[in-house]
Amino acid sequence: MALQFELLSTRASGARRARIHLPHQTVETPVFMPVGTQGTVKAVQQSTLETIGPNQIGAQIILGNTYHLYLRPGHELIARLGGLHKFISWPRAMLTDSGGFQVFSLSDLRKISDEGVRFRSHLDGSSHMFTPEHSMDVQIALGADICMAFDECTEYPADEARARESLRYTLAWAARSLSHFRANQHRVPWHTEILQSDGALATQSLFGIVQGGMYPHLRRESAERLLELEHEGSGFDGFAIGGLSVGEPRELTRQVIAETLPYLPKDKPRYVMGVGYPDEIVEYARMGVDMMDCVIPTRAARHGLLFTNAEATGVARMNIKNRQYAEDKNPPDPSCICPTCSRYSRAYLRHLAQTGEPLGGILNSIHNLHFYLTTMANLRAELESA
Amino acid sequence: MALQFELLSTRASGARRARIHLPHQTVETPVFMPVGTQGTVKAVQQSTLETIGPNQIGAQIILGNTYHLYLRPGHELIARLGGLHKFISWPRAMLTDSGGFQVFSLSDLRKISDEGVRFRSHLDGSSHMFTPEHSMDVQIALGADICMAFDECTEYPADEARARESLRYTLAWAARSLSHFRANQHRVPWHTEILQSDGALATQSLFGIVQGGMYPHLRRESAERLLELEHEGSGFDGFAIGGLSVGEPRELTRQVIAETLPYLPKDKPRYVMGVGYPDEIVEYARMGVDMMDCVIPTRAARHGLLFTNAEATGVARMNIKNRQYAEDKNPPDPSCICPTCSRYSRAYLRHLAQTGEPLGGILNSIHNLHFYLTTMANLRAELESA
Repeated sequence: MALQFELLSTRASGARRARIHLPHQTVETPVFMPVGTQGTVKAVQQSTLETIGPNQIGAQIILGNTYHLYLRPGHELIARLGGLHKFISWPRAMLTDSGGFQVFSLSDLRKISDEGVRFRSHLDGSSHMFTPEHSMDVQIALGADICMAFDECTEYPADEARARESLRYTLAWAARSLSHFRANQHRVPWHTEILQSDGALATQSLFGIVQGGMYPHLRRESAERLLELEHEGSGFDGFAIGGLSVGEPRELTRQVIAETLPYLPKDKPRYVMGVGYPDEIVEYARMGVDMMDCVIPTRAARHGLLFTNAEATGVARMNIKNRQYAEDKNPPDPSCICPTCSRYSRAYLRHLAQTGEPLGGILNSIHNLHFYLTTMANLRAELESA
Repeated sequence: MALQFELLSTRASGARRARIHLPHQTVETPVFMPVGTQGTVKAVQQSTLETIGPNQIGAQIILGNTYHLYLRPGHELIARLGGLHKFISWPRAMLTDSGGFQVFSLSDLRKISDEGVRFRSHLDGSSHMFTPEHSMDVQIALGADICMAFDECTEYPADEARARESLRYTLAWAARSLSHFRANQHRVPWHTEILQSDGALATQSLFGIVQGGMYPHLRRESAERLLELEHEGSGFDGFAIGGLSVGEPRELTRQVIAETLPYLPKDKPRYVMGVGYPDEIVEYARMGVDMMDCVIPTRAARHGLLFTNAEATGVARMNIKNRQYAEDKNPPDPSCICPTCSRYSRAYLRHLAQTGEPLGGILNSIHNLHFYLTTMANLRAELESA
């Protein structure tokens, strides 16, 4: 049986406090999901991921990237080792994207047809074909708790004709993804291993992805068409809004989310892919988004950018490489209890960044992930209060 | 007051079990000291260093590199922040080298005179001068528990005339190092902060370095001349054998150590610099060496080389990048209890190495350091037994 969505409360604003019961973890939402591109959240140990955040709750769910793991080490190898959870030693929930976004952003010589996308690997130039069926096979082999339908991520800017053409692929591929997923999901490596509380076998879940560029009527059409696949209890288990954070201004991101949410069912999880900065994830969660993921906390960390608490604005950005921190004995964020702020000074973190020492990326990543996870935990607590 | 050397037992082989009472830590010897070149043991958190090894004893003492820290962030900045211990948040013992070896191995346009060494920074080509007095000033500002006299590391191969000429510098600089150190050691940033068990103020210690290339009579002369500086209780607090691991065959390394040890006093610590592989450090400790340091465990780790227990030979080497480990579910070393072996498979570590993920270097470094520290802990236990 797929995920169970337990909606605890909904605010007038649309903000929801919910629980997603997944095979490997019950996830409290709104939730931010750290990205583990190649089967590792960059520079952070799994044991750290399990404990950072308030009350040492840690990350409840992390992402893996289908495109990267398909190329290295290969989904079949991971399946033979028992699936992605066992391969990377991560006992909690995981989600894999469809590979579509990386094919869009990383690969060369991308050629789209009704069948799927032919592309060249960014690693060695070798030729590969992703179809909806193949993406499902790869994601079933990886065995994440949540898989994503194979879609085409529409670029920005794209005129309406182009956005409509792109959406045509996404909609056709959604139906094929769902059909192939349902027919083959019993092939997941942990098929007979995890029982739900009711004794039934736990299974993977599949989310549909709403595209449509920056055109509200296309977004609506996209959502409605995905919902039409909902028959005989075999529709999508949740819905994502994709094709955002592709270069558009932030106000447009917010607008597309606001205009799309009303067309998504209230009784299923809503996931906005690839966002965002700390204030953005709070803003979207307040609008009714349940799940978000982004590489920003770890990527920014490796470039010396730290997110800190600020009284007036809620969040401030600190470029730890700045000269002003060279002799600063304070922790990055004096109000923060993370392992980095509990032990190290701005001066030391600046030195690590200046010298390119790996410990800099490690400590900065821990702080930023702690900041993101704490931000969402605080929001959940706020949504629980009267 | 400088270090107190407590010799607990000596074997017929020369192997010693001892304690070195230092301001920040009592160090149980024989000891291996992880190298923290730029104020960080590469890719390993201080909290991890404090706990890896048997019984979570962790590293008792780590190294800092004077040359690197002088260039970035600068010794004066570190002194203003309270010294290296506070700067990097490491409460246990530290040792700094003299900078001589890095000037020898890293810098360009090195020009030696009686006064000292003029060199160009490997970072930006700027011109700098290290004299014995300046090296002492830098090391006093850094504030490690143990400082090293400024020496010239003789290259290999070097003919006898060259080795003698090089030794002439080292001996003259040793006297100047000692004199300047004694006159200025009260300038250490923590001068009035640390009391010994007898209530006296704890101070830094200074070690002399024996050079002389691969020539036994020069090594003897070097040791004897250093010992002549021992008058009025202001001699060196310990002695190092330097100029090894510079390209000579390993048998020659062992031979030079064996031929030099008899000329070093029994009541002071003996330190062989820059060695070695796990079997080497055991071999030298069994000959009567108390302290050793080397970048091998962390550098090898970053290249995917792991040290593991082997029944026949004691230690085996595993290149985790090898294809044979691609689907190997076993931990790197099934007999190892380190955080890496307790959680991760060879297959996962191979994947991390193949993809160049930072977590690979982190987990491999933790394992190798655990292996080195455990190796020395086991040897200490053996030396304690009847």
